[in-house]
Amino acid sequence: MIYWDHNATTPCAPEVVNIMSRYLSVDFGNPSSSHLAGRKAAKGMETARRQVAELAGCRPKEIVFTSGATESNNLIFLGILLSGSTDRKQIVVSSIEHKSVLNPASLLNERGFDLIQLPVTADGVIDFGAAERMLSEQTLLVSVQAVNNEIGTIQPVERLARLAHQHGAFFHTDAAQALGKIPVDLNQWGCDLASFSAHKLYGPKGVGALFIRGGVGKWPWVYPFQGGSQEGGLRPGTCNVPAIAGFGEACRLASESLREETSRLNGLRDFFENSILSNIPHTYIHSRHASRLPGISSLAFKEVPADLLIDNLEMICIGKGSACTAGAIEGSHVLASMGCDDAISNATIRVSFGMASSFDQIKLVIEKMAASVSVIREKLGGGVHASK
Amino acid sequence: MIYWDHNATTPCAPEVVNIMSRYLSVDFGNPSSSHLAGRKAAKGMETARRQVAELAGCRPKEIVFTSGATESNNLIFLGILLSGSTDRKQIVVSSIEHKSVLNPASLLNERGFDLIQLPVTADGVIDFGAAERMLSEQTLLVSVQAVNNEIGTIQPVERLARLAHQHGAFFHTDAAQALGKIPVDLNQWGCDLASFSAHKLYGPKGVGALFIRGGVGKWPWVYPFQGGSQEGGLRPGTCNVPAIAGFGEACRLASESLREETSRLNGLRDFFENSILSNIPHTYIHSRHASRLPGISSLAFKEVPADLLIDNLEMICIGKGSACTAGAIEGSHVLASMGCDDAISNATIRVSFGMASSFDQIKLVIEKMAASVSVIREKLGGGVHASK
Repeated sequence: MIYWDHNATTPCAPEVVNIMSRYLSVDFGNPSSSHLAGRKAAKGMETARRQVAELAGCRPKEIVFTSGATESNNLIFLGILLSGSTDRKQIVVSSIEHKSVLNPASLLNERGFDLIQLPVTADGVIDFGAAERMLSEQTLLVSVQAVNNEIGTIQPVERLARLAHQHGAFFHTDAAQALGKIPVDLNQWGCDLASFSAHKLYGPKGVGALFIRGGVGKWPWVYPFQGGSQEGGLRPGTCNVPAIAGFGEACRLASESLREETSRLNGLRDFFENSILSNIPHTYIHSRHASRLPGISSLAFKEVPADLLIDNLEMICIGKGSACTAGAIEGSHVLASMGCDDAISNATIRVSFGMASSFDQIKLVIEKMAASVSVIREKLGGGVHASK
Repeated sequence: MIYWDHNATTPCAPEVVNIMSRYLSVDFGNPSSSHLAGRKAAKGMETARRQVAELAGCRPKEIVFTSGATESNNLIFLGILLSGSTDRKQIVVSSIEHKSVLNPASLLNERGFDLIQLPVTADGVIDFGAAERMLSEQTLLVSVQAVNNEIGTIQPVERLARLAHQHGAFFHTDAAQALGKIPVDLNQWGCDLASFSAHKLYGPKGVGALFIRGGVGKWPWVYPFQGGSQEGGLRPGTCNVPAIAGFGEACRLASESLREETSRLNGLRDFFENSILSNIPHTYIHSRHASRLPGISSLAFKEVPADLLIDNLEMICIGKGSACTAGAIEGSHVLASMGCDDAISNATIRVSFGMASSFDQIKLVIEKMAASVSVIREKLGGGVHASK
């Protein structure tokens, strides 16, 4: 099996599995317990909190562990919803946010908040000029992802955070696709809130973080979850120590390899895209000239439905749009925002390289892809094949 | 180290760690992906869903995986809150619920719902007669735990569910302390909703379930979390496959061992309590004559503050009240509801036996406990020591 869907999820690094095993069955205590087993678990959590903070460019006390970025995002919007409309009732998101931001924002919109969606360029980057025109003294929160999950475009969060602050608004970034893949510096970026998931950077699923500038004491809204006093009371429930320790270890590993891996993944991506363009006619690559996440390529073979191609490739795992919407029938809202027509959207696949990806894999896959694309085009008998 | 705090959390069974390792690093796909890696992960989830449903006495489609019982409980109360007050605006909980039910219920109360707390007997069992008088046609939800986490009393959920239904109310049980320890039969019990955590039955932390009678399509309220379409849309976010598979395996193991382990743990508990009573004077055992969870004993050595005793026992891990409130200064609301005074409450420890507990451990610990109790009583110079 060749796995080229690292933006959907990644395997855990061996070091991560190793440390998780320890906290699953040896130092398995509940960190809220005052006895020895509890104290060992609590110590493991604090190590992890420091490791995550180091990679994210913030202080350990600013990290609240959650079950992942979807929960982190939801806590913010639920917090606002439960606190009710103040004098500021405008929520600003980009039109290409993940559903875990767009959908909670829509819920706020249904409950009396104004919702503004920032447009993007044809390359899938936030239109900063539009943002400048659209924010106002009414803006309560601006939420823009650090990296788009479907096309990999890196967004100007630092400029957007500054703009939000000029209007007295909070700035949140869903950085699930950024942490461990590009340098993240929450302090430098000026974020007030940020969301992370461990499983995008060779950590475990089911764990992530919510960054709150200044720590949980600075949380400006009602706590949506109520229960025990874990994570300052914002995130009650027995702390998921093994996964949190695994998340910390994944961050430590990413700190070590980030620079080298970035250049390797960009090399693979360029080789892949150049080979594709010279081997498979009528190919369209999204956001090719934008600043993108290392190792991601979103592309369409005209008149080749992505579903058919993915099925045809069998042992090669590539994505269609994002994994989170893979079950849905609707087309990609990201590509639609960029002005793509349905034909291109339905033909779009997402390739995302990772640690085990290699030039040899690329050569092999391109051969198979070229053959599959030919077969599908021939079978469907569209104009592209006829005109070749 | 002797670990006697299995109600706080348990170590993962070796079989659980084993299956988790597989889904962490081999079959690590995102189950929302349509490719091979995704399908393998999805298959693992469905096996787990069946295993959990079998142990809980429900159908697989009625299980929604969450991050644990605290989240499951909160989803219910948040769902009600977001749906707003209907003609029914009364919420009924017991006075000895876990904080993850009591605190969300209080939030509802602040937001216009009436909140009724069912009293308990001196033995810590819901006063059913009071429940009969307190429920009404105004009751929207009755939420009573299956087993109390501090004292281990088993509650009459089947009768309470019937009573709730007579008034047209929903019945929810937080069964975090019951699953895998006593026979759970949600169908027989007649629950509409139930909450579970895997880490109480030798499964991993960070995973649990919300049971919804009839499946997620029957969820009567607004979805508090918004995002992808995972778990029928009620619980968006990348599914935590390794932990879910571990939860399933833990349920399978519990199905096999439940009957035998119940009688073994009750034997240990009886031996422990009898030995304590004959070795350490002025001991008070809570709920001794109530129907209790196997292997749990909540007891107080008069004039011996629990904190001091726990510190003194060093390598022996026992709990004070519940782990979730261990960091808090306030006394146990459970013991207060049972009419215990502060002196007894502050002296109360919780012993909960598990798989590795043995008669030999008990003999050893009782010797150390008796010595510690003597030393502390002597040091504090209270009336108990003097009168001995």
